[in-house]
Amino acid sequence: MVFHVEYPRTVPARKPEGHQPAAPRYTLRWHHPIAMLVSEYYAIQQAELPWSRQKDFFDRVQASFDHPDGPAAHEVMRFTDEQGEINAVVVAYWLDATKHARWTADAAFPKWFRSDAPMAEPAVGYWCETIAVPYDRFETIYSGPNYKIGFARTADSAIEPMTTNGYFGAARDRIPVSAIDPLDSPMKDTPPKPREVESRGRRLFASTPHNMTALRSGQYWVGAGEEQLTDYNENLEPKLMRGMNYLLDHKQDTGTLALRVMTNLDADGNERAETSVLAYFLSLEKLEDWSKSHITHLDIYRHAIAMNRQFKEKREVVTWHECFVMPAATSFEYVNCHPLTGVIRYCALSSDI
Amino acid sequence: MVFHVEYPRTVPARKPEGHQPAAPRYTLRWHHPIAMLVSEYYAIQQAELPWSRQKDFFDRVQASFDHPDGPAAHEVMRFTDEQGEINAVVVAYWLDATKHARWTADAAFPKWFRSDAPMAEPAVGYWCETIAVPYDRFETIYSGPNYKIGFARTADSAIEPMTTNGYFGAARDRIPVSAIDPLDSPMKDTPPKPREVESRGRRLFASTPHNMTALRSGQYWVGAGEEQLTDYNENLEPKLMRGMNYLLDHKQDTGTLALRVMTNLDADGNERAETSVLAYFLSLEKLEDWSKSHITHLDIYRHAIAMNRQFKEKREVVTWHECFVMPAATSFEYVNCHPLTGVIRYCALSSDI
Repeated sequence: MVFHVEYPRTVPARKPEGHQPAAPRYTLRWHHPIAMLVSEYYAIQQAELPWSRQKDFFDRVQASFDHPDGPAAHEVMRFTDEQGEINAVVVAYWLDATKHARWTADAAFPKWFRSDAPMAEPAVGYWCETIAVPYDRFETIYSGPNYKIGFARTADSAIEPMTTNGYFGAARDRIPVSAIDPLDSPMKDTPPKPREVESRGRRLFASTPHNMTALRSGQYWVGAGEEQLTDYNENLEPKLMRGMNYLLDHKQDTGTLALRVMTNLDADGNERAETSVLAYFLSLEKLEDWSKSHITHLDIYRHAIAMNRQFKEKREVVTWHECFVMPAATSFEYVNCHPLTGVIRYCALSSDI
Repeated sequence: MVFHVEYPRTVPARKPEGHQPAAPRYTLRWHHPIAMLVSEYYAIQQAELPWSRQKDFFDRVQASFDHPDGPAAHEVMRFTDEQGEINAVVVAYWLDATKHARWTADAAFPKWFRSDAPMAEPAVGYWCETIAVPYDRFETIYSGPNYKIGFARTADSAIEPMTTNGYFGAARDRIPVSAIDPLDSPMKDTPPKPREVESRGRRLFASTPHNMTALRSGQYWVGAGEEQLTDYNENLEPKLMRGMNYLLDHKQDTGTLALRVMTNLDADGNERAETSVLAYFLSLEKLEDWSKSHITHLDIYRHAIAMNRQFKEKREVVTWHECFVMPAATSFEYVNCHPLTGVIRYCALSSDI
């Protein structure tokens, strides 16, 4: 048996009457109850960031995970941001918000992050974005059951087949609380405008708006044979990048508050055949508007479906995402970062005293 | 039918095997699903605060409630704080966190509160404490079904009889998520120590620790006849005040982060025969430790039970509480307040930029 939450619906499901998906997809469950989920991103940011410094950062963060309340899973990644700076990123996952809070209070790296030390070097930024949601504000999808990534790497998880997929609105239907809450943005009619912020030399706390939607959306093609590798490189990836660039170029229209295309790294800092996009949208509805209607997403979506149909269980490229609709929070923190970092330009800010 | 949430238990209930309470108590439900609950306290604070200024404050806050996203219920109250200053308080209740967020973004009073205006008078403070929790982190108890107070004043609510009462740990058992989460404080072994803070002339945001427990606990004796009125004045109230003073005098031991004894007011500022205590505890466990073992609480508890038994349905004093176990949040804000206000001395603080 797996844990799940369901509510008596007062908000209609998006699933069309009698819908049966052409092929099953998979979603994440656990064999024990989960009250809250925490996924946390720690990063170092610098225009020139040699591997030795990235590795030092990864080593320090990972060393602090060796703690009774350390995360249940983690990954290391890298991306170049909109300012052209390099960001080395660790994402960590907890299935227990109390453990996460204890780790944050006690472990070496978060203690260092809270001290004055990260402010010491003028051109080096550090940031931490913490996504903490009740279980009922979370959903996942995986194209196949065999590769465990993101929250799926935590112990006691199960990737289960489902049929809540293959139609627009399926992601919403998979979020348990969407049965009783439309999850609207309170800023629906007054989306935040980007503004100039002096962020270097400061520690800034960003308050993210109620129902902001965090999406980590990934693709994995390690070990793909020549045919599928070529298709990935020549078709899926270019379509994906076109979509991501569209969102980055149309932040206001699409409600995109931040978006990073990250690549997983091996222990030597080499890029793996595995990328994921971490993006924040003003609301689930804004993400849905783009997904269901914009050609850049339809191209990605149709191509991924066509390939899944063509190769069936021989499909060697895994696509997946994990999605969180966040209650109002002040859980994103930027230390000495450049002003284009994360949600700095879009959210209410406070600073340390 | 009423809405409620239950989980398959992995944390044992506190209810003793076969327990049947001597008398039923009552708890709050709604006739429609509730995803999140918000209770918000706005206050003005000044050493000398004449009724005309209190009334002006109440009028401005209440005028801003006339808004499509205004609260579902509210009350006005007053108390003298530990510094000896007068605080005029409005508590407002929302059954929808999105409506609350829209009201906060759009209505006149919260806009004014966010502006520089509240900082204009040197010896006048303003504060706002927002308690927002998923439904599964909330519980209530009422000694009788007839007087609606606190969240019970919201539309579509129902005060229902229950038998999850009359033993220590019943409040925990009534919190749905306690079935799968022990709701421990991450600061259990390192409780926060009070510290000196320069708070006048500043806008401070306090980050309250994960699983901090907010309790509004009240008594109502409007219309009580002479016998029960005398008992209230001579017995229950002194016992209650002795208990509250014990908590205030032993904040560290009891995990009490703040505690105010507030009196409800009529439209002319006269005190009603109705008081409530708003208190924050480091954790539900700390509150339980005091409740189950300290003579000052046992005195209150036993006396209330004895009177309920003696008068049964003729009992004219209503006792009740509403309890919230809060996820980590940064939703308490203090503008130009004195340093003993609320949780200022105990919580991590940030300031406006």
